[in-house]
Amino acid sequence: MGCVQSFREICDRQKNTNVRLSLPAVCFVWQTAMIILFGVFIRYNEESDTHWVEHRKANNISSDIENDFYFRYPSFQDVHVMIFVGFGFLMTFLKRYSFGAVGFNFLIAAFGLQWALLMQGWFHSLDYTDGKIKIGVENLINADFCVAGCLIAYGAVLGKVSPVQLMVMTLFGVTLFAVEEYIILNLIHARDAGGSMVIHTFGGYYGLSISWMLYRPNLDQSSRLQGSCYHSDVFAMIGTLFLWMFWPSFNSAITDHGDGQHRAAINTYLALASTVLTTVAISSLFQKHGKLDMVHIQNSTLAGGVAVGTAAEFMLMPYGSLIVGFCCGIISTLGYIYLTPFMEKHLKIQDTCGIHNLHAMPGVIGGIVGAITAAAATESVYGREGLVNTFDFEGAFKDMVPTRQGGHQAAGLCVAICFGIGGGILVGCILRLPIWGDAADDNCFDDESYWEVRDEALQNTGFRMRL
Amino acid sequence: MGCVQSFREICDRQKNTNVRLSLPAVCFVWQTAMIILFGVFIRYNEESDTHWVEHRKANNISSDIENDFYFRYPSFQDVHVMIFVGFGFLMTFLKRYSFGAVGFNFLIAAFGLQWALLMQGWFHSLDYTDGKIKIGVENLINADFCVAGCLIAYGAVLGKVSPVQLMVMTLFGVTLFAVEEYIILNLIHARDAGGSMVIHTFGGYYGLSISWMLYRPNLDQSSRLQGSCYHSDVFAMIGTLFLWMFWPSFNSAITDHGDGQHRAAINTYLALASTVLTTVAISSLFQKHGKLDMVHIQNSTLAGGVAVGTAAEFMLMPYGSLIVGFCCGIISTLGYIYLTPFMEKHLKIQDTCGIHNLHAMPGVIGGIVGAITAAAATESVYGREGLVNTFDFEGAFKDMVPTRQGGHQAAGLCVAICFGIGGGILVGCILRLPIWGDAADDNCFDDESYWEVRDEALQNTGFRMRL
Amino acid sequence: MGCVQSFREICDRQKNTNVRLSLPAVCFVWQTAMIILFGVFIRYNEESDTHWVEHRKANNISSDIENDFYFRYPSFQDVHVMIFVGFGFLMTFLKRYSFGAVGFNFLIAAFGLQWALLMQGWFHSLDYTDGKIKIGVENLINADFCVAGCLIAYGAVLGKVSPVQLMVMTLFGVTLFAVEEYIILNLIHARDAGGSMVIHTFGGYYGLSISWMLYRPNLDQSSRLQGSCYHSDVFAMIGTLFLWMFWPSFNSAITDHGDGQHRAAINTYLALASTVLTTVAISSLFQKHGKLDMVHIQNSTLAGGVAVGTAAEFMLMPYGSLIVGFCCGIISTLGYIYLTPFMEKHLKIQDTCGIHNLHAMPGVIGGIVGAITAAAATESVYGREGLVNTFDFEGAFKDMVPTRQGGHQAAGLCVAICFGIGGGILVGCILRLPIWGDAADDNCFDDESYWEVRDEALQNTGFRMRL
Repeated sequence: MGCVQSFREICDRQKNTNVRLSLPAVCFVWQTAMIILFGVFIRYNEESDTHWVEHRKANNISSDIENDFYFRYPSFQDVHVMIFVGFGFLMTFLKRYSFGAVGFNFLIAAFGLQWALLMQGWFHSLDYTDGKIKIGVENLINADFCVAGCLIAYGAVLGKVSPVQLMVMTLFGVTLFAVEEYIILNLIHARDAGGSMVIHTFGGYYGLSISWMLYRPNLDQSSRLQGSCYHSDVFAMIGTLFLWMFWPSFNSAITDHGDGQHRAAINTYLALASTVLTTVAISSLFQKHGKLDMVHIQNSTLAGGVAVGTAAEFMLMPYGSLIVGFCCGIISTLGYIYLTPFMEKHLKIQDTCGIHNLHAMPGVIGGIVGAITAAAATESVYGREGLVNTFDFEGAFKDMVPTRQGGHQAAGLCVAICFGIGGGILVGCILRLPIWGDAADDNCFDDESYWEVRDEALQNTGFRMRL
Repeated sequence: MGCVQSFREICDRQKNTNVRLSLPAVCFVWQTAMIILFGVFIRYNEESDTHWVEHRKANNISSDIENDFYFRYPSFQDVHVMIFVGFGFLMTFLKRYSFGAVGFNFLIAAFGLQWALLMQGWFHSLDYTDGKIKIGVENLINADFCVAGCLIAYGAVLGKVSPVQLMVMTLFGVTLFAVEEYIILNLIHARDAGGSMVIHTFGGYYGLSISWMLYRPNLDQSSRLQGSCYHSDVFAMIGTLFLWMFWPSFNSAITDHGDGQHRAAINTYLALASTVLTTVAISSLFQKHGKLDMVHIQNSTLAGGVAVGTAAEFMLMPYGSLIVGFCCGIISTLGYIYLTPFMEKHLKIQDTCGIHNLHAMPGVIGGIVGAITAAAATESVYGREGLVNTFDFEGAFKDMVPTRQGGHQAAGLCVAICFGIGGGILVGCILRLPIWGDAADDNCFDDESYWEVRDEALQNTGFRMRL
Repeated sequence: MGCVQSFREICDRQKNTNVRLSLPAVCFVWQTAMIILFGVFIRYNEESDTHWVEHRKANNISSDIENDFYFRYPSFQDVHVMIFVGFGFLMTFLKRYSFGAVGFNFLIAAFGLQWALLMQGWFHSLDYTDGKIKIGVENLINADFCVAGCLIAYGAVLGKVSPVQLMVMTLFGVTLFAVEEYIILNLIHARDAGGSMVIHTFGGYYGLSISWMLYRPNLDQSSRLQGSCYHSDVFAMIGTLFLWMFWPSFNSAITDHGDGQHRAAINTYLALASTVLTTVAISSLFQKHGKLDMVHIQNSTLAGGVAVGTAAEFMLMPYGSLIVGFCCGIISTLGYIYLTPFMEKHLKIQDTCGIHNLHAMPGVIGGIVGAITAAAATESVYGREGLVNTFDFEGAFKDMVPTRQGGHQAAGLCVAICFGIGGGILVGCILRLPIWGDAADDNCFDDESYWEVRDEALQNTGFRMRL
């Protein structure tokens, strides 16, 4: 702690938000690197290559409709909307940081998905015969998933970092994600279709740790801009709703063909419905005059989707999904009311979007629910084949039993937390270097730092003074 | 009428919009009830259960792609967007009720779909061998459909009721819907794939009757807030467009696999296109200086989708769809110009969103078009097998003929109207009890009644006074 | 040129934006004509007709899932969103023309798609046995594509034309499009799945030529309204993102079943990701203080999708897609910085949305990339069957070789440019007639010309004066 403290002091400096050299440099160099690496490593897989016709005949596949594209593409597009519109617009709630929210979200997602295709490809889709990564629609979904982890982290530092810092955060975030995912899914053999652990727990703690490393003691100097305005709250609801509606696609996008995708979608649909009611209840109950708070409606209503991520493909049962959603709505909303202020005041964690309540906590709950559901699985409920298929008790893990699988799930959760916190502290150190162009404490949450804002109405009427 | 009048007087009282006890209580109790009922009754069906693999082999199904999930999930997601973004944002047009529009829409839809899964499940998906309701993606679509009826009704009372009243309205609305749907589809054997009768006619008259029961003689005291502002009209266009674009999915979501879904989508696409042109024409023609009215563009352009709901799966023919859309654009827009003011002044029906023009009237037209199209069906046009498949002339109805089917369609329409009006009056009585926390006449259409509105700009500059 | 000049002078006149007679007349007459033509010509095809069951059995198709509906409907819906929300909202960036942007886009798209079904039907889907056009989901997609060409053209004249002019522009635009498309795809046998040439190049030059014909020397009198405001820029990002996200569906919507759709989606996804980074880089590099410009982020980020339109279905390779996107981000952004002002000043082309940078130039690049990729195709990369399938070397073209195909692609590009420029000048002449109700130079970019704007806040506080 002492060394962290002194490191912080070293990094105190005069702030300059001009990124005219650093941002283009990062974009050009990294995009060029992507092109070279893609040239060396990435090719189409057998289902997206023109040899598909021959492959189809050779494998006795009766119809083009059995190309994985038709199983997964609709889900992919829904996930894609969540990444770009969902996350992007959810963060537009700040009255003067909508450009940064939706624009930087766009930038880092577009970079992150390329890097994710490479990183995840090396771990999961490398064809050892020719050393190439073979990609298809499932890789695109996984790349979007990987990016989601970094966008969650962005939520914690929204308005306080420069686009260059975000690019660095994403580069390391994707790298850490791919390693963590490989350990959890392949080495530990945990199941995590919707990424409660791999995406949300990791992404949440990664962002919170970075925010803690970048603690700004005088952030209240920007408080005039740290709220929402009427229409920015409505914009944020666009993000909320697209996340909420398409979450069943998120949790079912890479589950098993057939009943796996079907069941994951149903469970997520139900958990989310349940969350909405308890979020509204708590929001009203803890506010004077029983008025609802838009912050809760925008965020906590999504917690149920996070928390069924791991167990959505299991036989969680419809009522099980409702229970998970019920609890998460309560916990997440209480988190916004009590925990976020507490963390800011006592733990020096400034969490702009409250990702601890929306992603980190529900993600941990999701990991625990997954472990319990897995441990409780029986052949009578799943059927013999169903049990093997659902938990992938094949190959090196063909002697696995549900109770042990539960333990592995729990181990996976621990790995996700460790990677999140450890990685966040590491990357936070790097982001404290005085070279990234982030804004001063009294200038946060303001689009004018990085965007040409031409709104004469705001300028003429002295927007800044009035607000 | 006299007793209704005196009942109204009894219910006049001092208004208090504090729902701090009632709203959380309703949410918690009802959500808990849902969990218990789901625990007792709801299970996965054979296509979403882990036993699918065995079921597939036993039934000689060659591929996972034949799981109903892949036939219907893309349509389901489109319907889902219509319910939450479509209906939600369509109602954001009021300058100061956008939170209530999109937020309460979210709340009641999330509750309603759970209750709908149960109610519709008891009628349609009950497995008599074990007394459980078995759900799959088609049930999710039907639950969304059922909720649509209640959201339509919300349009009539937008800005004038409390969230607790909305929850009560939804509880009864879903219940009535499920009964009415069972009578129309199963007992009467009417076909109504897109729900012109079952959803729109019922929902429309249900909402109008409630609005009539809750008539507010002094609503003009809130007139300062009863209009739109520039950006709220643009927000509403988000709702309009997502409804318009995804309506082909709505009308085709639960039609027969293959040509049924295909044809329903085409018919709806065409009817909607045609409606846009006549809506624009009438809007311009009846306004001084030929200027267009956003209210018409936001609403009447959708009437064609409502009106082909029943006949979309029939051989309505592409030009038939265009004709239906043509007429509905005219009728719906004229409704906004003449009928809505007339109903408010002379019939004491205050219809905030004009659902009579967008849902009730076009729904009735849709029912009539459906009856005529069914009655006119011939084997030469449909083919022998096609006729049986399209109208489901099987089992107890295997001796049915098209002309008689036309009569059954008409009977179905009558049932929908009766349930709508009767149910609305009944529920309206309940909603007049002085316990629900609705706002006073001079305080309607204002988000500040139920939401923490933190917009300093509005507060400082005296938003309420200025507007 | 001289005759064009004098024609311009003849058309100078007192402006009157009252379209109360002309707009309803055009809408009613054209919609009635559509109904008649649809009645005479348009029927369901074998996959959307009730005879599908018999057709299926006769053709040994094992499952309903092989109905083309399930191959293409999800892509169709994504394309539909691009047309109505994507194009519509992208143009809402002007501070006081959001109604016109999204509303007129809605109107002309709804008309255009009907006319496109007929025009394209006559060329591509005419059943010579009975003289009817048989439509299915692929026709709906193609109609949306055709409309896209006209919506692109709308971007060039946004805010400067009346809705009646837009209807005329669309009528001729669709007609020209269908002819041009037939020549390029069928006679020349060029491939253009995503329409780089057929849609974007044609649409871009069509719009630019019309804008040149309608040159307004005193447009600076409307400069007070020619910018964006803060929230209108956020609305425009809705359009940008839905275009960006669903572009993979656009480019893959009508490609071959199986690997064709799969590969086109992957290539587009990658090209677009790459474009985002170079757009951000150039935008920051060429602005003082390195600030980003929303105009670039809203538009240039999409250029990569345009430019892989032709080659997306070929074996462009993932790195090839990244390179195309890389270049287009740079070129398109530089276009906004240097070329648009140059064209306005020296070429008398006023391009409101900068469609030259977003559609015309990237479209030409796309055509060239397509020609090169086709010419470089080899059997070793594509496989024998793959080569034939991908380039459709069948029937009259079974002796075609890749190098010659490259030449045909280039010829196709020339045709698109010629049709765009020629057609635009022709239609521009017609649109200069003093009967269409367009606004005077000092009254452009103002919704009040054609819309009832009821926003009291704007009216009371003297919106027009202040801005």
